[in-house]
Amino acid sequence: MSEGYLKGRIRRDDIVSAAAAVYGEAGYHASSLREIAKRAGITHAGLLYHFPTKEALLAAVLERRDAEDAVREQLNIPPGLDVLRHFLALAEHNVRHRGIVDLYSRLAAEAISEDHPAHAYFARHYREARDSIAQSFRALAETGELRPGVDPDLAALTFIALMDGLQVQWLTTPTQVDVIGSLRLSLETLLTVPLFPE
Amino acid sequence: MSEGYLKGRIRRDDIVSAAAAVYGEAGYHASSLREIAKRAGITHAGLLYHFPTKEALLAAVLERRDAEDAVREQLNIPPGLDVLRHFLALAEHNVRHRGIVDLYSRLAAEAISEDHPAHAYFARHYREARDSIAQSFRALAETGELRPGVDPDLAALTFIALMDGLQVQWLTTPTQVDVIGSLRLSLETLLTVPLFPE
Repeated sequence: MSEGYLKGRIRRDDIVSAAAAVYGEAGYHASSLREIAKRAGITHAGLLYHFPTKEALLAAVLERRDAEDAVREQLNIPPGLDVLRHFLALAEHNVRHRGIVDLYSRLAAEAISEDHPAHAYFARHYREARDSIAQSFRALAETGELRPGVDPDLAALTFIALMDGLQVQWLTTPTQVDVIGSLRLSLETLLTVPLFPE
Repeated sequence: MSEGYLKGRIRRDDIVSAAAAVYGEAGYHASSLREIAKRAGITHAGLLYHFPTKEALLAAVLERRDAEDAVREQLNIPPGLDVLRHFLALAEHNVRHRGIVDLYSRLAAEAISEDHPAHAYFARHYREARDSIAQSFRALAETGELRPGVDPDLAALTFIALMDGLQVQWLTTPTQVDVIGSLRLSLETLLTVPLFPE
């Protein structure tokens, strides 16, 4: 790798970090490339060299989020209780890193529109998250650890939606919302076994 | 009431309706008074006569939402199963009126910021919604209809957050999200009695 290439990579990473921070504070629509350039300590022209459009920069922010998720998923946990515990740990990580949740919640609400550049990303993200959790609930159903009569797909939808809804409410009034308590309650009522054996 | 007064009220209502529609499509930050005036079929100056600032118009949209809620709450249902059934019916109403959900979900995500003009509104809205539902779960705990060991406040937070999270996911991918099925599943696992007796 040439020195120039490396410098370019570092610059690009700085811009993506600055963009993630600005989207987390103001959303995508209300943010400008000019403001992101300022935050990254680069000229507007310098930013445009790396990311010619707002959409290109948003795509890079979402790609990085996916790359981080992929690193976590290399843990390769087999479907079952451990996956649910892993998602709880992820939620605990998120409430200590408000920026991640801010970015996700704001973009998710904007991306409702079919013409938003992150719409396809979120549609895929929801489907993959539901599929992954549903697989675990199905495994638990086979071992009798899921409450009889509970549909694994509906349980997965419920878990993902609850996580999303808790995040917005927690971001608005952090001291009044027990994110982890609520997720544990929901999981514990869906299971026939304790989530964390004594 | 003079004719002029009445005309003014109707004009004002038209503007608030147009604003609610535009916020639902684009959010508050990305919308302009100019665009809302156009949608309401009024000049920009005419709109400014009724609402001199973006914030004043947002306040009017939220006030109307509250007034509509107040009308519903005049039903005066005593705390208990009927309140939960009422919220399910409300969710069923919402999935038939996408605009209501759009407006609410977009504003809620923007209002995370403490400096957003709707921040105080959402903080109060969440608290009141949690209190109202918690009262019902407490009544159900007293009659043994809430699962033993379930904290009524945590159950209320869970129900409200689930409703909010489901709405964003449903708005993004309507055909893949069973809002009512998920809410019923969540309530049924929290209760010791059927939500709808056969």
